[in-house]
Amino acid sequence: MKHAMMKFGGWGDPRKAYDLASRPFLWDFVHAQSGLGRDVVSPPRSIDDIAVPAPREGADFLAAVAGAIGAEHVSQDPRVRLLHAHGKSYRDLLRARFGTPARPPDAVLFPGSGAEVEAILAAATRSSVQVIPFGGGTNISGGVEVDPSRAGLAVAVSLRRMNRVLAIDAVARTARIEAGILGPELEATLNAGGYTLGHFPDSFEFSTLGGWLATRSAGMQSDAYGKIEDMVQSLTLCTPSGTLVTPNVPRSATGPDLTQLAVGSEGTLGFITEAVMRIRPLGVREYRGLLVPGFANGIALARELAHRGAMPTTARIANPQETALGFAMKPASHGAEAWFARGFKSYLRHVKRFPMHEACLMIVGFEGATKAEIRERRKRTLAVCREFGAVDLGTGIGARWFAGKYDYPYLRDVVMDRGGMVDVTETAAPWSVLPALYEDVKTSLHAALRQGEFPGYVGCHLSHSYASGACLYFTFAARAERGNELPQYLATKALVFDLLLKHGATPTHHHAVGFELLRWMPAHLGPTGVQFLRGLKQAVDPQNLCNPGKLIPGDTPALEHYWPLAATRPAARK
Amino acid sequence: MKHAMMKFGGWGDPRKAYDLASRPFLWDFVHAQSGLGRDVVSPPRSIDDIAVPAPREGADFLAAVAGAIGAEHVSQDPRVRLLHAHGKSYRDLLRARFGTPARPPDAVLFPGSGAEVEAILAAATRSSVQVIPFGGGTNISGGVEVDPSRAGLAVAVSLRRMNRVLAIDAVARTARIEAGILGPELEATLNAGGYTLGHFPDSFEFSTLGGWLATRSAGMQSDAYGKIEDMVQSLTLCTPSGTLVTPNVPRSATGPDLTQLAVGSEGTLGFITEAVMRIRPLGVREYRGLLVPGFANGIALARELAHRGAMPTTARIANPQETALGFAMKPASHGAEAWFARGFKSYLRHVKRFPMHEACLMIVGFEGATKAEIRERRKRTLAVCREFGAVDLGTGIGARWFAGKYDYPYLRDVVMDRGGMVDVTETAAPWSVLPALYEDVKTSLHAALRQGEFPGYVGCHLSHSYASGACLYFTFAARAERGNELPQYLATKALVFDLLLKHGATPTHHHAVGFELLRWMPAHLGPTGVQFLRGLKQAVDPQNLCNPGKLIPGDTPALEHYWPLAATRPAARK
Repeated sequence: MKHAMMKFGGWGDPRKAYDLASRPFLWDFVHAQSGLGRDVVSPPRSIDDIAVPAPREGADFLAAVAGAIGAEHVSQDPRVRLLHAHGKSYRDLLRARFGTPARPPDAVLFPGSGAEVEAILAAATRSSVQVIPFGGGTNISGGVEVDPSRAGLAVAVSLRRMNRVLAIDAVARTARIEAGILGPELEATLNAGGYTLGHFPDSFEFSTLGGWLATRSAGMQSDAYGKIEDMVQSLTLCTPSGTLVTPNVPRSATGPDLTQLAVGSEGTLGFITEAVMRIRPLGVREYRGLLVPGFANGIALARELAHRGAMPTTARIANPQETALGFAMKPASHGAEAWFARGFKSYLRHVKRFPMHEACLMIVGFEGATKAEIRERRKRTLAVCREFGAVDLGTGIGARWFAGKYDYPYLRDVVMDRGGMVDVTETAAPWSVLPALYEDVKTSLHAALRQGEFPGYVGCHLSHSYASGACLYFTFAARAERGNELPQYLATKALVFDLLLKHGATPTHHHAVGFELLRWMPAHLGPTGVQFLRGLKQAVDPQNLCNPGKLIPGDTPALEHYWPLAATRPAARK
Repeated sequence: MKHAMMKFGGWGDPRKAYDLASRPFLWDFVHAQSGLGRDVVSPPRSIDDIAVPAPREGADFLAAVAGAIGAEHVSQDPRVRLLHAHGKSYRDLLRARFGTPARPPDAVLFPGSGAEVEAILAAATRSSVQVIPFGGGTNISGGVEVDPSRAGLAVAVSLRRMNRVLAIDAVARTARIEAGILGPELEATLNAGGYTLGHFPDSFEFSTLGGWLATRSAGMQSDAYGKIEDMVQSLTLCTPSGTLVTPNVPRSATGPDLTQLAVGSEGTLGFITEAVMRIRPLGVREYRGLLVPGFANGIALARELAHRGAMPTTARIANPQETALGFAMKPASHGAEAWFARGFKSYLRHVKRFPMHEACLMIVGFEGATKAEIRERRKRTLAVCREFGAVDLGTGIGARWFAGKYDYPYLRDVVMDRGGMVDVTETAAPWSVLPALYEDVKTSLHAALRQGEFPGYVGCHLSHSYASGACLYFTFAARAERGNELPQYLATKALVFDLLLKHGATPTHHHAVGFELLRWMPAHLGPTGVQFLRGLKQAVDPQNLCNPGKLIPGDTPALEHYWPLAATRPAARK
């Protein structure tokens, strides 16, 4: 394994930690919501202290694979196996901290080409081996862990060696790219040619193109450039029954869209090994902060921007609680800056009569070819914002948000260290549904999270807008119940998923299904929808070798393992 | 049958014919390309002179269906059966003229609701009856005819009674609409509420929402509003194994996109009975004509418009031959108008040194909320057009094009009456492929169509643009070879489809596969792609009752019937 990987029991770069010391207001805010103290009460465990079961027997398969991809690209090192055991959900980190991770794969394979992936699938088919695609390992829906209910060998297949931009078509503005490339690798290569893909999910630093495609990922600029499924023109999917290369054309009427059938398949149909992606020239950018009075008003504002064609490249609107968290995360300010901040707040409150307790921070980003273009679009966007009572805070806060946008996940580790439960859940629904959906989820979450005087934290931001609706992204936190961490967590998530389905919303706009949402899929897609997914699976993977137990209900009895019903009985909700 | 239908052996409204008399220049142009004379040599046959085989026996099924949808909605009238025997391709019209139409369905059913469609499917499953979905009957790829290679009863199921707009969500800007609604019915209802769908295919007057969805239809404003697959948010698909209602959300990450799997399924997976479509407010419009020097230059111009964000609502660029046809279709002009036209042409040629023999007519349409918005967008678009040497002809020619945009298909009947073969074929490919693809198709078509001094007609226009490529739409015509009409036609189309695949282009951007493209599907999608389509079919229609023999290669031996290999041997190309 030649590739740096994330921490095992936490997020991100092992050399990096969230800088709590320089944020003097943050912990008071966290404490007020959750009651959590400043002391570390539940430190992460070193990966070296975790017992790893011996790999299962699979000499024939491993010999065949070593012959095909080189013995040096097959690892049974316990540490490597552990690092490919699961993703980065709260559940995953809990298990890592408890020293009881998911069953690790028996080996990790590092193929270097599509042909080598095909060879792995051929060997897996002969020996009935479970194969789990692995990109950056940032998945938070249980999408990259072994199905523990299946007997036999299980291997993780890391695509990280397949990290090249193979070709750029400057006329069509597309690039053919291998699936195992990390976000920063991809952008560095494209940027060198004057291009960008324009896909920047929160996990950007550690996630791969293949992972984005397999899970229908969304990025921070998706308002302008679309989700990953809008950026992909063609892809290569290696299945146990053959390799699909979808037509490399802008549009086609040759039947159901096979590209859109592979996108979001979460490894259950095979491995996405490369893709032709639409790219765009690098340009200039500007990010600004605004304050919007009231979250319902903010939803209405985003809708208006979408309907009037005034949607910027990025438009994120945080609810008051998430806005308060954002301000609490500010470093200490001194002298003139502090004086100015106090004065501006006072001006808003007294002169503009801005309802500060309902203030919603809106981040508005513009990207374009020229400064003139950005100026023109900014004018149009801000005019609509002003109609909704928004106050422009300028580019300082926008630049700060842009610079720190990948740091949020590190904060989770800090909260977990101090005994906190913290997780996210996101959805999309029509504009007509969103206000009631938001109120319902917020109220129900607070009811579930409240512990005595501490109401629990329920942040939310509107993250992506479409003509017909938007994505709401919730973050919730409270004190973890010692000894009952997992049931507490599963009950809280179950509560949200039930509510989302009740409102006709999707239980995930861009985090995918994995194991986590399996229980809700029959209700969400209906029996015929599930039958279609099974038909696709049956067509190319009749042995159910590819990422079994994810996405498609009924494949295996894994569900009960992953989401024990007992844990989510109402009684478990304290 | 209470619904007016198109002519049987020709296009469109039975009371309407193409007005040749008021176009004094047209036939000279047609003659110069094809050698066709003015006399009608091959008049259409009256539908009443065509022998209709007796329907096959199916009393049990018909009784069950009559019980479910009402006996008055089950027709075995020979005329009704004939009118639902096939669509409107050149092959279809040839067969109608020869009095040898496709095997007509044994009955035509007119359900009034999704529940009635479900009842029909249940009865069909019990009795193994072939069911063909029928909307407006405008299909030109053999998509609505009976599979003649299958034994047993075959019925067409017309959805024309299901033509209501069920609900409008003004906040989310979506409308729930029944699939059997015709274009004009749909727009009239939406317009009354201040909305439009914005989907205007050439067949608009006679085609239905369900047909658009089943074939991935494109409209004249798709540059701005997208193809039908971009406008649909959710749909209901009744299959023999149950009904799928896809989630009504703007986006989702719950696996492969089931809506995009049903869109383009051409009735092979069941019946699309209703859909939630994204709608927009009615606005103002402006259409202009421009002359662009050179078609390759025109392709480069469209690409630039797409890449600079200056693409108008409509941008169609005709090649020189199609441009000449357009000018030949002008009514006689008199007095000042004729003098001005001559003067302007002379000015272009002599003062601006515009290469008139390479002139390409470009139609540019703007639709928007306000005149000011259109003004601003026009300015941006025309600035780019001028960089490519385009000359603005003003709104007169644009308005004329807009007013006559549904009349072109009527011209085909006039040409066929006079012994001509005329057909269309369309494709999409990356910008980097289009110039060579265009030259190759044009040259090869002329080689195939040339008859002595007459070169044959090969018109082409760039009809839809995307960031990464565009759709080219070819129209070709020549004298039909008496007694060899069908082989001549099939050889010509085969030639084009072979070339499109050779260039990696799609053989259809919006006309769908039907029977016509079946032979090219294995090469276009590859064996794994075909396996996925079969897996979808197997999942919900294991008896292969729903529109058998279309889209999915290998379902039936129908291919040889529809496209006899003998007819397309190179020897057959004169």
